Amino acid sequence: MTISLSRSAAAIALALALSTATVASLAAQSAPADRLIDAAMKDSAAWNRLAELVDTFGNRPVGSASLERAIDWVVAQMKKDGLENVHTEPVMVPHWVRGKESATLLAPHRGALHMLGLGRSVGTPAGGITAPVLVVRDFADLHAHAAEAKGKIILFDYPFDTAKPPFQAYEEAVIYRYAGADSAAKYGGLAALVRSVASFSLSTPHTGGMGYGDTTAHAHHVPAAALSIEDADMLARIQARGQPIRMTLSMEAHMLPDAKSRNVIAEVRGSEHPDEIVVLGGHIDSWDVGQGAMDDGGGSVAAWEALRLIKQLGLAPKRTIRVVLWVNEEMGGRGGEAYRDAHKAELSRTTFALESDNGVFTPRGIRLTGPDSLLPVVKQLIAPLARLGVTEAVIGEPEADVTPLQAEGVPLLALDIDGSRYFWYHHSDADTMNALSPRQVALCVATMGVVVLGAADY
Amino acid sequence: MTISLSRSAAAIALALALSTATVASLAAQSAPADRLIDAAMKDSAAWNRLAELVDTFGNRPVGSASLERAIDWVVAQMKKDGLENVHTEPVMVPHWVRGKESATLLAPHRGALHMLGLGRSVGTPAGGITAPVLVVRDFADLHAHAAEAKGKIILFDYPFDTAKPPFQAYEEAVIYRYAGADSAAKYGGLAALVRSVASFSLSTPHTGGMGYGDTTAHAHHVPAAALSIEDADMLARIQARGQPIRMTLSMEAHMLPDAKSRNVIAEVRGSEHPDEIVVLGGHIDSWDVGQGAMDDGGGSVAAWEALRLIKQLGLAPKRTIRVVLWVNEEMGGRGGEAYRDAHKAELSRTTFALESDNGVFTPRGIRLTGPDSLLPVVKQLIAPLARLGVTEAVIGEPEADVTPLQAEGVPLLALDIDGSRYFWYHHSDADTMNALSPRQVALCVATMGVVVLGAADY
Repeated sequence: MTISLSRSAAAIALALALSTATVASLAAQSAPADRLIDAAMKDSAAWNRLAELVDTFGNRPVGSASLERAIDWVVAQMKKDGLENVHTEPVMVPHWVRGKESATLLAPHRGALHMLGLGRSVGTPAGGITAPVLVVRDFADLHAHAAEAKGKIILFDYPFDTAKPPFQAYEEAVIYRYAGADSAAKYGGLAALVRSVASFSLSTPHTGGMGYGDTTAHAHHVPAAALSIEDADMLARIQARGQPIRMTLSMEAHMLPDAKSRNVIAEVRGSEHPDEIVVLGGHIDSWDVGQGAMDDGGGSVAAWEALRLIKQLGLAPKRTIRVVLWVNEEMGGRGGEAYRDAHKAELSRTTFALESDNGVFTPRGIRLTGPDSLLPVVKQLIAPLARLGVTEAVIGEPEADVTPLQAEGVPLLALDIDGSRYFWYHHSDADTMNALSPRQVALCVATMGVVVLGAADY
Repeated sequence: MTISLSRSAAAIALALALSTATVASLAAQSAPADRLIDAAMKDSAAWNRLAELVDTFGNRPVGSASLERAIDWVVAQMKKDGLENVHTEPVMVPHWVRGKESATLLAPHRGALHMLGLGRSVGTPAGGITAPVLVVRDFADLHAHAAEAKGKIILFDYPFDTAKPPFQAYEEAVIYRYAGADSAAKYGGLAALVRSVASFSLSTPHTGGMGYGDTTAHAHHVPAAALSIEDADMLARIQARGQPIRMTLSMEAHMLPDAKSRNVIAEVRGSEHPDEIVVLGGHIDSWDVGQGAMDDGGGSVAAWEALRLIKQLGLAPKRTIRVVLWVNEEMGGRGGEAYRDAHKAELSRTTFALESDNGVFTPRGIRLTGPDSLLPVVKQLIAPLARLGVTEAVIGEPEADVTPLQAEGVPLLALDIDGSRYFWYHHSDADTMNALSPRQVALCVATMGVVVLGAADY
């Protein structure tokens, strides 16, 4: 996407104003930031609130009652917190249902494989698909073995390169999760399996979204599922020995009509420029496995807690600070689009939009998607966080839910965190409170709070 | 158990002989050991053979067809290897069947818990047991909450102390797995759950053996299962918030009549003292989850590979070296007892019995269960392994399958390995080839081979 500079007038004006700020005025502003940091770091409040959310309501896939109950609870708690303008905004969300599913190895031995169907996948016929398996490394390898693919279940065994930065390795591997089914179908495959896109495994499969290129009802769609890294390795070894592999894949997965859901909004109104807005948030939906604690209960609660502390400490920001908990990040981003559409008139007055969706691990700094001219602003916004080791300001990719705001000229911010363990847990049953530490969650609360407070007060 | 010194005449004689060995004679003996080390370390043969075993036959619980097929294959391969006196010896084994099982949280939210029934547990009535949950830390905590236990499912949430040596932490926690069911029943509990006895988790439950104190048919036996660490933590948090916990535990687990199985034997006969025997081995059975690669396919194949290399290299040991792959370590140790009973006449001529059952990780040395006077012998046996970093000779606990030989005066040896990751995988779906590295397996082959070759040649 391209950045429409004409729409980012507020941001540019802010940058110009900042360039004339004196050292003295910056020092005067450190007091509220320090109070916020001290409040965020003093106990495990954010971790505890996240635990209460995910323990009480479980994971929160779009279309589920658990998601809607969780949203109701969050709204009620935000009101109890004294936050302002707490409300929800309607979003129609896709409704994919996993149903029962299994993958059973039949030869060379009989045993349960560790699988998770992929989001949006079609199911198998009742009774499942029983077929031989062809293991390939990538699309080129499938093409090279085109003559062997027909009538088989195709396993894309593309490795997660743990020598690379984790998000880069993910981007390289995840294409087989997204597009493996269409590729398998093209060569006459009956279903697609993909090696879990994960950097570590204890036989835990990792789900995630997939898509069909042709979404018409009559297109040839084959089901798709992830296998654990261990099972993918095993099937590759069996094939390399020349032993035939036979299995049954059984999935009840199917789409239902779109369901009603909601984005959650809460604010502390600005004391001087209430119509100028700084946005922060995470996404309240999750996959239907684990607790959805890391992805992205953590980002949601960190944003919410940052705003709660700003309110509780009476820090009275000059611009309005708004928390948005987007819905449907995992299944297509409808929440981010709905927010953009519902708030179009405000976007030229939206100074920054900050999202945390890379896990509430140790933050190192802030990633900016916006004009280079704003980087010095970001550096000044994070200056009070130096005592926490949060010092980096870099240009980089935006998070998903704020991406629709990019074309509207809103500068986007993201937490740049230590992602070394993110893909241990991502989209798996291991995404639980145990993935997160109270101190790391508190560091994310402090970082988000200081950045938005600074942006609101300049 | 006490050591009957009168039965260890061969070992004592060996110690005395060794004390008069000259440095020159030791140096002359290093050549075969070095050849064995070089052969073991030169490729991934042992890891590959283990992979073929577990990939082809799967896990190997006693009573299963997969165990018997695996034994048939091992016997055939051992014969192809040219090993001598390859045969099996009958063992009647208990036959516990897991059946379908699940644990479903009903309140505060509905969701699948990550569970594995414990070995020997009874099942639940059809439809399961639906009841509130009481979380306790230990037996004393249950006693303190005796008034609340009746009619509940009792979760023993005893932590694995990762600050302690792993096998010590295991011993402290595993008592709740063994005896939790009887304790729960005593206080009117309907079932026992236990926090998985594991040092790391990605929502992977860990099974293992349990027992009932009163094994008569009319005793009050309640079912027992392990929960993942994450689920145990979640239930403890929910209880601490004062929220009621309700769940359904459903298990088809049941015992069948004892089944026929076999210990596997293979030898290289001694060139000078064929009636004197050095034993090495592991156990060929496993739990019915994961691949049983670490526990104890690895120990079994390491012992087998050590003997294969001794044969292939023509090292012609003076005493007989015998591999024993015991059956039924996991479900009660009948293989170890059967071996003792079938070989009683030989035990006074059995110089050492070495077992690997702590995972084929990096070996640090050898653990001796026997008279202190043998420790210098063990130190000399491992001397050629110094170049691999295998240098420690210590007195310690024996492995399970050789323990019946202790009272018969046979000195017992065990691989003392780096156990830091053992309880990541132990008795779980994560016990796969991915837990093991070719180099570490090769180090165990080299260590076992050098020790038994040295013992056979002195």
